[in-house]
Amino acid sequence: MILVADNLHIMNPNVAKALKEKNPLPLQKIAERCKEANVYAMDINLGPLKRNTEGVITFVIEAVQDIFGGRLLLDSVQPEVLKAGIAACKRPPIINGFSLEEAKMSFILPLAAEYQTEIIGFLINEKGQVPITAEGRLEVASRLLAKAEECGIPLERVIIDPVLVPLTWQDGTRYNHEFLEVIHLLPQLCEKPIRTIAGLSNLGASSPDRAARATVEATFIHMFAALKLDYILMDITHKKALNALNLSQLLLGNKVFAWEEVKSG
Amino acid sequence: MILVADNLHIMNPNVAKALKEKNPLPLQKIAERCKEANVYAMDINLGPLKRNTEGVITFVIEAVQDIFGGRLLLDSVQPEVLKAGIAACKRPPIINGFSLEEAKMSFILPLAAEYQTEIIGFLINEKGQVPITAEGRLEVASRLLAKAEECGIPLERVIIDPVLVPLTWQDGTRYNHEFLEVIHLLPQLCEKPIRTIAGLSNLGASSPDRAARATVEATFIHMFAALKLDYILMDITHKKALNALNLSQLLLGNKVFAWEEVKSG
Repeated sequence: MILVADNLHIMNPNVAKALKEKNPLPLQKIAERCKEANVYAMDINLGPLKRNTEGVITFVIEAVQDIFGGRLLLDSVQPEVLKAGIAACKRPPIINGFSLEEAKMSFILPLAAEYQTEIIGFLINEKGQVPITAEGRLEVASRLLAKAEECGIPLERVIIDPVLVPLTWQDGTRYNHEFLEVIHLLPQLCEKPIRTIAGLSNLGASSPDRAARATVEATFIHMFAALKLDYILMDITHKKALNALNLSQLLLGNKVFAWEEVKSG
Repeated sequence: MILVADNLHIMNPNVAKALKEKNPLPLQKIAERCKEANVYAMDINLGPLKRNTEGVITFVIEAVQDIFGGRLLLDSVQPEVLKAGIAACKRPPIINGFSLEEAKMSFILPLAAEYQTEIIGFLINEKGQVPITAEGRLEVASRLLAKAEECGIPLERVIIDPVLVPLTWQDGTRYNHEFLEVIHLLPQLCEKPIRTIAGLSNLGASSPDRAARATVEATFIHMFAALKLDYILMDITHKKALNALNLSQLLLGNKVFAWEEVKSG
């Protein structure tokens, strides 16, 4: 599983403060930490921008990209933010993302085609809903991929996100159980392999209990490893989840196993 | 995942002592503990018996079966032990198990047919080896199931064990990675669903580090839950693994989720 960080997010108070004060240092600190943690890509989510949208995204990308050195996910629903972001990126960014919703189809998917970027496809239907069953989500996946192809974007440039939901949602455990089933069944949908991603932070967004949230995140990481999920988008300050990621790589990797390398807890 | 206990094993000093002293009490203590832990079935493995084989297996079964109240797995390579065990069991036992090895085919598989019991099928070939690749193990599964059917044992009475190996084996992580792949691919082999089991204790048989072993066992439980393994055979005194089992059931179950029910660690 390839590690993607969601720490550069507007809900992170350090990010909000950095934007307000136009101070690149807190952003660069996040970028350094991502580099140290061997993160493959950083997701940049600044929320809906109202003023100087292009200036803000450019400022953030320029602040972090050289220090981090990896790839960036441009996480926005604003086409003008994505466009300016693509222009500012030195390495090919990944657009995060599109779905069957009209605005995404009309304004975001075409950007991925025009700039030949990779793009994340959420299994969300025209009404903005995640179907509860795996069958329903696979049907959305099938239509998403067809739309991407019509637009000139091949399967190889799409990464499917079947959408983890907060566990406390009505039927939250059912939704997430079906998420696993989607990962299990997706290879049967396409002739070529299709990559997958999960946003781990969604699980416990509302959790009052940090230890419980950490345990749940670690558990899902192991389940995803078993199902060969390709990318995990997560908070890299969550040590227990990172340990779980390393452990799954140790247990399923090609290195000679040594008990001394197992970190407990 | 359904819980099966491997605690009534000759390597457990309390079991060895009970047999030596013909004292049912230590065996009954294990049976009580299994009952309290909501174990579905207890595996009985007394190692190779030399004298009074039928008397010993009968003594053990009579000691535990009423107290435990669940099903028993008769884990032996000696047909006479299995036969006496089947006769002593009040509830239908499960024979554990057969493989493509000649002795198992000639003397053990026919017992399952004669007494119409369920039987565990190990993915071990004629030479007594576990193929390293999933492909190789699926080929063994296919022949095992054909042999069972020839013998009059339908698919529904077979439980496949793709054989977890100690992590410290040469290529141990590779073997176990391929184990997961077998669980993933097995449904495609048969028209009807086929049940699966894993022996968790094999993983860390040689581990010098109890905490590391516990962490690894918990990790595999989560991976198995994601792949919908049917039965887990394990040491029920391993609390971390039991907590992991409960957590996976909480996360993937049908109950309303509550953070308070997540036990950390």
